[in-house]
Amino acid sequence: MSTPTRITQADCRALDAQDPLAPLRAHFHLPEGLIYLDGNSLGAQPKAALARAQQVVGQEWGQQLIRAWNSASWIDLPQRLGAQLAPLIGAGADEVVVTDTTSINLYKVLHAALHIARSERPQARTIVSERSNFPTDLYIAQSLCQQLGFELALIEPDELPAWLQPERAASVAVLMLTHVNYRTGAMHDMAAITAAAHAQGLLTIWDLCHSAGAVPVDLSGSGADFAVGCSYKYLNGGPGAPAFVWVSPRHADRFWQPLSGWFGHAAPFQFDPQYRPASGIARYLCGTQPIVSLSLLQCGLDVFDQAQALGGMAALRKKSLALTDLFIALVEQECAGHDLGLATPREHAQRGSQVSLTRPWGAGADGQDSGAYAIMQALIARGVIGDFRAGGGPGSAHLDILRFGFTPLYVGFEDVWQAVAQLREVLDSGQWRQPRFNQRQAVT
Amino acid sequence: MSTPTRITQADCRALDAQDPLAPLRAHFHLPEGLIYLDGNSLGAQPKAALARAQQVVGQEWGQQLIRAWNSASWIDLPQRLGAQLAPLIGAGADEVVVTDTTSINLYKVLHAALHIARSERPQARTIVSERSNFPTDLYIAQSLCQQLGFELALIEPDELPAWLQPERAASVAVLMLTHVNYRTGAMHDMAAITAAAHAQGLLTIWDLCHSAGAVPVDLSGSGADFAVGCSYKYLNGGPGAPAFVWVSPRHADRFWQPLSGWFGHAAPFQFDPQYRPASGIARYLCGTQPIVSLSLLQCGLDVFDQAQALGGMAALRKKSLALTDLFIALVEQECAGHDLGLATPREHAQRGSQVSLTRPWGAGADGQDSGAYAIMQALIARGVIGDFRAGGGPGSAHLDILRFGFTPLYVGFEDVWQAVAQLREVLDSGQWRQPRFNQRQAVT
Repeated sequence: MSTPTRITQADCRALDAQDPLAPLRAHFHLPEGLIYLDGNSLGAQPKAALARAQQVVGQEWGQQLIRAWNSASWIDLPQRLGAQLAPLIGAGADEVVVTDTTSINLYKVLHAALHIARSERPQARTIVSERSNFPTDLYIAQSLCQQLGFELALIEPDELPAWLQPERAASVAVLMLTHVNYRTGAMHDMAAITAAAHAQGLLTIWDLCHSAGAVPVDLSGSGADFAVGCSYKYLNGGPGAPAFVWVSPRHADRFWQPLSGWFGHAAPFQFDPQYRPASGIARYLCGTQPIVSLSLLQCGLDVFDQAQALGGMAALRKKSLALTDLFIALVEQECAGHDLGLATPREHAQRGSQVSLTRPWGAGADGQDSGAYAIMQALIARGVIGDFRAGGGPGSAHLDILRFGFTPLYVGFEDVWQAVAQLREVLDSGQWRQPRFNQRQAVT
Repeated sequence: MSTPTRITQADCRALDAQDPLAPLRAHFHLPEGLIYLDGNSLGAQPKAALARAQQVVGQEWGQQLIRAWNSASWIDLPQRLGAQLAPLIGAGADEVVVTDTTSINLYKVLHAALHIARSERPQARTIVSERSNFPTDLYIAQSLCQQLGFELALIEPDELPAWLQPERAASVAVLMLTHVNYRTGAMHDMAAITAAAHAQGLLTIWDLCHSAGAVPVDLSGSGADFAVGCSYKYLNGGPGAPAFVWVSPRHADRFWQPLSGWFGHAAPFQFDPQYRPASGIARYLCGTQPIVSLSLLQCGLDVFDQAQALGGMAALRKKSLALTDLFIALVEQECAGHDLGLATPREHAQRGSQVSLTRPWGAGADGQDSGAYAIMQALIARGVIGDFRAGGGPGSAHLDILRFGFTPLYVGFEDVWQAVAQLREVLDSGQWRQPRFNQRQAVT
């Protein structure tokens, strides 16, 4: 995005001053001096979470003990949180539960989708997904392919239209896509792809990990079949907070999902030795949930309730695009000549709430890697937190990525200015070439 | 257990005064005036848990944000907690992980066991378990039977020896038992049953939900194959705290467990599109864990580390048996003539850390049920918390149960006196017949 005139720090301050969503930042604890652009990996802590943790641990567990299953309504927390989350993803209030992990919820819905597909279109034995989908989704699909006799076809995004033409689509049972790509931030057109898939008889599964709370999602309006997603990124539910699962009411009662634990039973406290699935989305529950972690998610969702009065997801989307536009423009203005490319689409309709910058292989300090890891470490040392995602190495179609997430609930326009100013200093100074920034840690 | 002379409250006080484990009670928050005999459902709150929750939410999440995966070692918390828990169940430090739920962990190990059995003894197509096993175990087995073409045989405990004779055992692939029965508190001889099962070529899966932290367990010494269990009962990990899974090193690398999420990958942060399982127990990990709930478990396990200096599990077991002996003796002394039976074995070697009292069908307030539910509600209203577990109704071999758990870490001998005194008053007064105690709640 080129700009006619040079953008200044004062321009960014002016944008903050005009931002109707600026008051929402006060709901979050953000450490002094830190610019946090990694809410797409772990969302910031809503201030209410600390008091809520004290209440759940000190009062509900400590004082109520076992009685809290009734008195604090722990028993229906997966459903209550699902109902609170539902409007953010265009789902009915009784169509979502918060439970388990994204990987496990994907296993449930993919298993169900494959059984439905097998009964309706037995010749269709392929699951189509993207090679750059988040790996855990691919691993779960690989397990179910091995178990149920399906094949996984991994494609690049530009190959998708061809797979939705009749000849190829005839072999496809399920299209399993992540709505916003974790590496590039590219966003699919959920409604158009779902319609094209349905026209060929395919079922669709959408992973909303990088969408829920970040971009408007309309599962019902898109006619989607199944969806899963995590709650610890843009929903700010806390580290590893339980994930969600949505099943279209068309399908919810059609299959006995495989992780048939007691919380998915029609009457869990009758202690019946025979499994009878609950009707609706409740059958996608399995075991006893981690109540403390689960309870904290409410604090994240409450901020979205506050945002409702300020324009809700539409206003958040508008700000998110303004933030990512500004970041792209400032990187181009300030960091030219440093081998940075742009992996994220410039078109608004194709962009999530992050910007991914690339570096070519061989541009690293020792000429052996891209230098992207070290640049990000040097930036983090300066108090600007984004993250690094490795590409496929030499010859791969996928480059190393410097990833920056922009959560419109708490990131401001001057934050973007400061982040790019620091990135420029890291690059101009060559500081990122220092050995300490080139040593890999367990998690990056 | 009959006693030669009448037991008095003073006798109970004397037992407390002599109890070497009495100092451990100070590590727990126990509400004033409450006698908590439901630690077999939800363990009490270790006092350290409140500060730990504040640390994880306020410092680790709030201040460190995404960096806490490294700086607070969230990344290997499932392994670190597994190593801390391992000595309590006779496992090697690198053989256990804490993750997901008991139901999900059972799905993983039963799937693995059935695949191993199918390759070794293809004619063996039956899973044997008990009809009174905790229902979620049976539901998970029913799902895998349907998926993999096995049958589930549900037996009564006294039928087990016959199923371990060559003729019947030839058809059995897996013996799936809960070590201490959730209803009756009856405990199996793990070593003897495992040996008898192995003699016939069967694999064994042990559910340790009511054993871990309650009774000494020696998985390695017993030669067991697989084990799962929860951490929110006798381990005091907090409501719905993640569960554990153990796989004998003989089997750990033999099968690609079906919930193949990214945390079970050999190199999760290489973002490889192809699943390659980690070696050892790490492959039984799946998705991102609920870090706040997971972190609190350490507070529960730390108390066991403190108990080590006071005699460890052997001393805890001795006190547990003394508590349950005393409870049985006092119920017989104080509550004779009130239709109470004993479901829990009197033999120490066959008893867990709970006592289950029965009531015959038809003894209820309206002559239609057993009255056990109402008796428990009236007792809870008096500040003595146990729980109720329904039997199978008229004609069933399983009676309604009043369940009392005795956690030797924090239950004292005078607590037992008080509990039985209150039970006597509930029964003698007929107070339990009041309608308010006969109205069922969601969770009991």
